[in-house]
Amino acid sequence: MKLPKKVQIKEVGPRDGLQNEKVSVPTHIKVEWINKLSETGLDYIEFSSFVHPKWIPVLADAAEVAKLIKRNPNVTYAALIPNMKGLERALTVGIDEASVFMSASDTHNRKNINKSIEETFPVLQEVVDGAIKAEKNVRGYVSTVFGCPYDGAVDVDEVKKVVYKLMEMGVYEVSLGDTIGVANPKQVNDVLDELLREFPVDKLALHLHDTRGMALANTLVGVEKGIKTFDSALGGLGGCPYAKGATGNVASEDLIHMLGEMGIDTNVQFERFMEAAKYIENALNKSLPSHQLQIVR
Amino acid sequence: MKLPKKVQIKEVGPRDGLQNEKVSVPTHIKVEWINKLSETGLDYIEFSSFVHPKWIPVLADAAEVAKLIKRNPNVTYAALIPNMKGLERALTVGIDEASVFMSASDTHNRKNINKSIEETFPVLQEVVDGAIKAEKNVRGYVSTVFGCPYDGAVDVDEVKKVVYKLMEMGVYEVSLGDTIGVANPKQVNDVLDELLREFPVDKLALHLHDTRGMALANTLVGVEKGIKTFDSALGGLGGCPYAKGATGNVASEDLIHMLGEMGIDTNVQFERFMEAAKYIENALNKSLPSHQLQIVR
Repeated sequence: MKLPKKVQIKEVGPRDGLQNEKVSVPTHIKVEWINKLSETGLDYIEFSSFVHPKWIPVLADAAEVAKLIKRNPNVTYAALIPNMKGLERALTVGIDEASVFMSASDTHNRKNINKSIEETFPVLQEVVDGAIKAEKNVRGYVSTVFGCPYDGAVDVDEVKKVVYKLMEMGVYEVSLGDTIGVANPKQVNDVLDELLREFPVDKLALHLHDTRGMALANTLVGVEKGIKTFDSALGGLGGCPYAKGATGNVASEDLIHMLGEMGIDTNVQFERFMEAAKYIENALNKSLPSHQLQIVR
Repeated sequence: MKLPKKVQIKEVGPRDGLQNEKVSVPTHIKVEWINKLSETGLDYIEFSSFVHPKWIPVLADAAEVAKLIKRNPNVTYAALIPNMKGLERALTVGIDEASVFMSASDTHNRKNINKSIEETFPVLQEVVDGAIKAEKNVRGYVSTVFGCPYDGAVDVDEVKKVVYKLMEMGVYEVSLGDTIGVANPKQVNDVLDELLREFPVDKLALHLHDTRGMALANTLVGVEKGIKTFDSALGGLGGCPYAKGATGNVASEDLIHMLGEMGIDTNVQFERFMEAAKYIENALNKSLPSHQLQIVR
């Protein structure tokens, strides 16, 4: 079993986790939570989204959060940026990095962004150019890589096309999203084999959801293929809106625990991380689905 | 990725699942449930345990269950047998197969069986001989293969010794138990590598618990190594007594779903299986932890 010595966890709980929770979270709770996360050894936190507040009310306070969090110089604070207006708001309050996003399937892209895949490229190009001009790195998300809630199966050639376009635009990394948690290990193996024929492994990340319990098995395939960056959300935040009660993002602490047991370093101090998980679980007043939280409960 | 075309699921919910639940289940519910399971395409059900009722009150009705279930000729009905007295009770009411059990770690074996590992061998030998004399196949369980709640790490040489002794006694297969759900994929890889140097792959099965969410990742390692038999419990029954709230056995439906998505046939009709899962979830009046149940809930 060929494994890397080290992988990077990109914590997306404050953004992807919260945006799919049907809750309202006061700004000071988010700030305190992100501050706790910043002291765990994590070096990357996607702290919010600068989409129009109308679309994701729970993240409407992105600018406030950006202003109030205590910046740890060892942490990259990233935010999701949909367009130039979002980029301007984000740059005003300060971000280290921008994330742009689109889907590999047309219907999901239309429902999410209100544009076809082709129409989305120029919008993202503008954001990438603007961010790079402001000396910010840009990361790209591709959603529905392994399946779409509307279109079903997604052609790997569509995925390749979107990944290629994003890299051509200037993103430094593309995160491959299993948005609805349908990917299975064989599929992850096959899709990565296809993509790794065309793209360097260091420019790809995996963004897995655990809706059907396969996220850690899919992670295993990823690390064996040499993927070294994994997105996850503390607690397993992000209950999928398409499947009531189903878990959302893979839980960071379950991922960090598994990798650690396998001898793969994530630089995260596990006990501190669990404190941050318990903090937000208490604040949300809701049992989060991570296995590690269930063990300590 | 080298995968088998077919694997066998051994359903242990009515035994291993129930024995770790703090519930009382009426006999007629168990019978109805096992009858439902018998019509799902499964060909193996461990339906109860003939240990002394004092030790596992929830399974005290093993003989009644054996008498009342409708036997499907395509299903092997197995039961856990601790000693000659249990074997006699089981043979009187009818079993197709006996399972004997012990641990790879001394303290767990003592707490469970009240004997040292060395003292356990002759007891099991007697049961294996008696069952074979009655023309029954015998399966062997080894608990705590990947870690012990009392002794911590377990030496793979101890595992080898117990597996060797069980095979020498005459069991046709040894099921390797991650009793407390601590195994990680790297460890499963390494332990299987060691064992497969000495034992044929067709004589080994995996019995995984999902306490830390790693059971499907561990399963993936197993199928890639050529293991073709996996134990699981419908619903993920079997909340671990050492970790309140933690999930127990890997949920059969999550396992069957993943394998099916990977193109590995289990012969189980998924919809029928989910009906059996929903039946016992309703009967227990308790949310079971399987992901598939959460999706349909």
